[in-house]
Amino acid sequence: MKRIAIAIVLTVAGLRAEVSYERLLDAAREPGNWLTYSGTYMSHRHSALDQVNRSNAAKLGLKWVHQLRTTEKVETSPLVVDGVMYLTRPPSDVVALDAQTGRPFWTYRRTLPKPINVCCGQVNRGLAILGDRLFLGTVDGYLVALDARTGALIWEVAVADRRTGHSLTAAPLALKDKIVAGVAGGEYGVRGFLDAYDPKTGKRLWRFWTVPGPGEPGNETWSGDSWKTGGAPTWITGSYDPELKLIYWGTGNPSPDWNGDVRLGDNLYSSSVVALDEDTGKLRWYFQFTPHDVHDWDAVQIPVLVDAEFNGRSRKLMYWANRNAFFYALDRTNGEFLLGRPFAKQTWAKELDAKGRPVRLPDTAPSRKGTLVYPGVQGGTNWYSPSYSPITGLFYFSAWEYASIYFTGDAPYSPGNRFLGSVPQGVPDDRGWGAVRALDPKTGEKKWDYKLHSTPQSGILSTAGRLVFGGSDEGHFFALDDSTGEELWRASTGGVIVAGPITYLAGGRQYVTIASGSAIFTFGL
Amino acid sequence: MKRIAIAIVLTVAGLRAEVSYERLLDAAREPGNWLTYSGTYMSHRHSALDQVNRSNAAKLGLKWVHQLRTTEKVETSPLVVDGVMYLTRPPSDVVALDAQTGRPFWTYRRTLPKPINVCCGQVNRGLAILGDRLFLGTVDGYLVALDARTGALIWEVAVADRRTGHSLTAAPLALKDKIVAGVAGGEYGVRGFLDAYDPKTGKRLWRFWTVPGPGEPGNETWSGDSWKTGGAPTWITGSYDPELKLIYWGTGNPSPDWNGDVRLGDNLYSSSVVALDEDTGKLRWYFQFTPHDVHDWDAVQIPVLVDAEFNGRSRKLMYWANRNAFFYALDRTNGEFLLGRPFAKQTWAKELDAKGRPVRLPDTAPSRKGTLVYPGVQGGTNWYSPSYSPITGLFYFSAWEYASIYFTGDAPYSPGNRFLGSVPQGVPDDRGWGAVRALDPKTGEKKWDYKLHSTPQSGILSTAGRLVFGGSDEGHFFALDDSTGEELWRASTGGVIVAGPITYLAGGRQYVTIASGSAIFTFGL
Repeated sequence: MKRIAIAIVLTVAGLRAEVSYERLLDAAREPGNWLTYSGTYMSHRHSALDQVNRSNAAKLGLKWVHQLRTTEKVETSPLVVDGVMYLTRPPSDVVALDAQTGRPFWTYRRTLPKPINVCCGQVNRGLAILGDRLFLGTVDGYLVALDARTGALIWEVAVADRRTGHSLTAAPLALKDKIVAGVAGGEYGVRGFLDAYDPKTGKRLWRFWTVPGPGEPGNETWSGDSWKTGGAPTWITGSYDPELKLIYWGTGNPSPDWNGDVRLGDNLYSSSVVALDEDTGKLRWYFQFTPHDVHDWDAVQIPVLVDAEFNGRSRKLMYWANRNAFFYALDRTNGEFLLGRPFAKQTWAKELDAKGRPVRLPDTAPSRKGTLVYPGVQGGTNWYSPSYSPITGLFYFSAWEYASIYFTGDAPYSPGNRFLGSVPQGVPDDRGWGAVRALDPKTGEKKWDYKLHSTPQSGILSTAGRLVFGGSDEGHFFALDDSTGEELWRASTGGVIVAGPITYLAGGRQYVTIASGSAIFTFGL
Repeated sequence: MKRIAIAIVLTVAGLRAEVSYERLLDAAREPGNWLTYSGTYMSHRHSALDQVNRSNAAKLGLKWVHQLRTTEKVETSPLVVDGVMYLTRPPSDVVALDAQTGRPFWTYRRTLPKPINVCCGQVNRGLAILGDRLFLGTVDGYLVALDARTGALIWEVAVADRRTGHSLTAAPLALKDKIVAGVAGGEYGVRGFLDAYDPKTGKRLWRFWTVPGPGEPGNETWSGDSWKTGGAPTWITGSYDPELKLIYWGTGNPSPDWNGDVRLGDNLYSSSVVALDEDTGKLRWYFQFTPHDVHDWDAVQIPVLVDAEFNGRSRKLMYWANRNAFFYALDRTNGEFLLGRPFAKQTWAKELDAKGRPVRLPDTAPSRKGTLVYPGVQGGTNWYSPSYSPITGLFYFSAWEYASIYFTGDAPYSPGNRFLGSVPQGVPDDRGWGAVRALDPKTGEKKWDYKLHSTPQSGILSTAGRLVFGGSDEGHFFALDDSTGEELWRASTGGVIVAGPITYLAGGRQYVTIASGSAIFTFGL
C-alpha cells in the first residue's frame, strides 16, 4: 500500500491581530500591511512601498507558493496584518499563513449545504478585519466572524437565503462599528440589498434595499411587480469617506438580465452607485450609469475616491471605469456628473447628456435574432479592481475591446433558478483583445495600453516604486512602468489570474502577491 | 453575470517526435532530453548537464508553472523530447507543452468509468515514448497509445479489470519492439503480472505472472488457493539491460497485506525483483528481498543498474534501497547477492544470511494487539526514484526513519474490495523524520544526510553540475551539493512533492522540473 496523505495543520497560539478603526482610517500610512480589500477606504489599490521599483523589478523572483487544492476559481485578494496573511479559499474557507514564508498557521473550513446557486463559480474575493476578528461572506448566504488568531468561529448570521439564489462572495467592508456586506444573485432574480452588522454580535444594524419597495422613491421605475425580482445585487466591495460618513457601493444588473420588457422603466438603483449614510444606511444620493440596463452591465466596480483639483476647483471626486465602457468622474459629495467618456469601443450610446445619462443608439437592445453590440457582455471592464496612483495621477485598469451578440427571450421566474431571458453569444472568429489601460482621470484620455492577446480579468496594483502590476488569462503576472506601460518583468504562473494583487512588508522586505489558478504566488527581490 | 471561464486548448500541428529505439539506448548521450521515466534504461535519474552547477545553483529562479486543475495527487515525472514536454495529469490525462515556456500544445482527456478501485489516489507516474507514439497506463486498466504530435488516440487495450481492483499507474517501459506495462492492486488481492505489448497494434506479446500458477515453480510457496489472490503487483517502472536482454522489475507486497497466516510460505515472487527475458517474458532469475512479507514492504523500487568494479572484480551490478530498510547490491547477470546492509533503523531482521535472506527476529510479525516495528509501513524508503551519480559513485534516495504499529486480523476476500487483514497505526507522538541520504553503494555506508522534519516522498535527480535535487512534503524543492549534502538552493512550491525531478535543455538552456501539489514547476538560471 502506498502512503496515504496526512493533512497537517499547524496552529500558532501567539498570533497577534489588533486592527483598530484608527489603523483602517490611516491604512495608507502603514504600507507594510494591507488592511482592507482595496488597500484603503479610498480604494486606490496603491502602495507607498518602493523597495521594488523600476530599477530592480526585473530581479523579482519567486519567494513562496501556497497551493489551495481547489478546482474552483480563486478570486481572493489577501489581507496582511503584521506579518500574517489572511486569504480566502473557495468556496468559503479562510487560511492564515506566514506572509514571509507562506507557512500555514490555521485554516477555517466551512462545510456547505447543497445546492449552492451561483452564476459563475463558488468564489470568494476576500475578507475584512476589525480588532482581532476576520469577517467573511459565504456562498451559502452567511456573514461569519472568526478569531483572527485561531480561525475559530465567533458568530455567524444568515444574511440571505441561498435557496433563492443569494450568496455572499465579496469581501465585507469594516467601518468603526459596522461590517457592511453585500450579496450576489443577479442571475437568480434576487431583490438586492446592502446590510450593516454589529461586529461584536452579528446583529443587523440596517439594510438598504437597492430595489425600492412600494411607496419608496424609485419603485415607480419598475413596471408591475418586477421590483420583487429586480436584481441590483451588491457583489463587490465598496468604498468609504469618513469625513462625509458616506459609504459608496456599486450595484449589479437588473433582473432578468437580457429581457427589459418585463421590467419597464429605469430600474433604480440597478447598475448604479449608491451613497449611503454610514449610520442609517439611508440613501444620500445615487448615480445610475446605465438606466434600464439590458446588457448585463453591472456597476460592480470599485469606487475610487480621490481628492484633487478638477476643472480648477478642489473636489472630492469619485472615478469609475464602468462595465458599459464609459469612464466617469463624479463629485462624491452629491453625485454630480463631472465627466463621462468612452474608454473602449462602444456602439450602444450616442453620447452622455449633461447629467451623464446615456443617449442610446437605436437597434442596440437585445433581440430575438441577436444584436451585435460593443462592449460585450463582460463589458469594457468588469469587477476587476482598478488602481489610482497619486504619484502619476493616472487610473489603471483591465480593459476589454470586444463585442457580444445579445439575444432576448422569455424570462419565467422560478425561485432558485436562473432568471436571464437569454444568453449572449460571442462574435464568431473574434474573441477580442484586452489591455492594462492607463487613463488620465481628469479627461478620460488614454495615456497608454499594455496590450494582451486575451481579455484580462486581473485587478491592478500601483506602487510608489513607479510600478503597475497586473495579470493575464494565460497566467503571466507582470510589472509595468507606471508612466509608459513598458513591461519591466513578468512571471509565468500557469493559471488564469482573476484576482487583485497586493504588496506588503515582511521581515523588512517588500513582497508582491497574486492569486493564479489554484495557487497564491508571492514574489520579492 | 460574471464571466464564465472559457477553456482554451492550443493545438500545434507541427510537433515533431521521433524517438527511435537507438535514441532510447543512447539516452545518456543526449542529456538535453529526458526520454524515459528514469532517464535511461540504467535508471540512474542522472543527467550529464552541468550548466546549472554548484557555483550558480543559488541563482535558480522560476521559469514557468503549469497548473493541472486537479485535486488528485500529482506523481508525474515528465518526458522531454526536442523541446516538447509530455506529462500525465491525474487520473489518466496527458498534456504536451512547450518545455521552454510551459505553453500547452494539446491535452488528452480520458473519461473514466466508476468506480475506480485504487488504494491511494487516482494517480499516474508517467509515460513511455517510442517512435512518434506515447504510451500511457490508465487507472481504469488500459494501456493507451497516443500520437505524440496531436494527442490523438491510436489504440487502447484492456490490460486488466478495474472491477477487481487492477489499475495501471506506472510509466510503461519502451523497448525495441515492446511496451512493458505493470499493474497495481496489491490492496485488492489481484494476482500480479507484467505484460509486453506490440507498440504498433497493442497486441499482447507475453505475460509473466508474478504469482506462479499450479504446476509452475514457486506455486508451492503459497498455501492452499492463496496464490489466486496473491498480489505481487508491478506498479513501478523497471529497468533494462540491452546486452543481457533482461528486464528488471520490482514486485509489490503479497496479499492480504498484514495477514500472512492465510498465505503460508515465501509467497514468490512478491516483494522481489524479477529478471525476465525480453523476448519471452520468461523468468531468468529472481531475488526475494522479503520472503513472506507481512509488513507491506513492496519491492517496488527502481532497479538501478551500474557497471562497476565490486570487490576487485568488474561486474554488472544492481543497486537497490528496499522498503524493508536494507540496501542491496546484486549481480544482475544472475541475481547473486553481493551486499546487504541496513540503511535506516530496522528492528525486524537479525541479519541477512549469506544468500541475502533476512533472519527474522522474534515477535516482529503483526499481531492482534499490535507490534511496533522499524521501519514503518511505508518502509525505509518507498517507490520514490533514487539516483546514482557515476561521478561521485554515490546512491541518493529519500530515506525514512520511523516505525509503525502493525496489526493483523481476518482478511475475507471479495472482488473489488480491499483485502488487507488490518491497517497499521502510527506511533503516538512520533511521526519520525526523513532525509535525502547518500550511500556508498559498494559498502552500504552512509556518506551524508540532508535531514528533513518530515518523511520525504520525492524522487532524486543527480547531475554533472554536481547537484542532487530533491523535495519535501512541505513543498521545498532543493539543490544539494552531491559530495556533502549541503543545501545550495531551495524554492517553496506550496504543495507536497511526490514525484521525481528531471532536467533538460530548451533553447540551449538547462531547466529543472518538478511536480508539486497540483502544479508543474520549472526552474532555470
